[in-house]
Amino acid sequence: MPHKTMAYHKHLAKVIQERRLKAGLSQEALAAKASVHRTYVGMIERGERSPTCDIGYKLARALGVRFSSLIEEAEKRC
Amino acid sequence: MPHKTMAYHKHLAKVIQERRLKAGLSQEALAAKASVHRTYVGMIERGERSPTCDIGYKLARALGVRFSSLIEEAEKRC
Repeated sequence: MPHKTMAYHKHLAKVIQERRLKAGLSQEALAAKASVHRTYVGMIERGERSPTCDIGYKLARALGVRFSSLIEEAEKRC
Repeated sequence: MPHKTMAYHKHLAKVIQERRLKAGLSQEALAAKASVHRTYVGMIERGERSPTCDIGYKLARALGVRFSSLIEEAEKRC
């Protein structure tokens, strides 16, 4: 699939995973910290789901970053 | 409900509505431009739904703004 037409959430998936690894958190630890189900975190990181903005906001807070910075980083890759 | 505990998408709802009105678009026109169902745009603006990040991205593009700028504006209100 050409890069330009890749759905936005696929880029966001990679950004979230990178930030989680940088924070030294497992998917389980991030899920617990963000009060999100751990299977949902896996689905988001694999790009199987476009997270709702509320979930994205919670994940960003749990990662200690601003939600807008995650969104911006993913947007730059589109 | 105290301002601080209001769900993120409720703030985003207001930001999207404000930007749509500023752009002089009806909900129907925005929905068509973004390829999103018009009833979904109404639900988002009324704060009944937390949009997925893909939908938020599409709406931002249809509004002619960066998605991260919508997200940031809503984040400031949290």
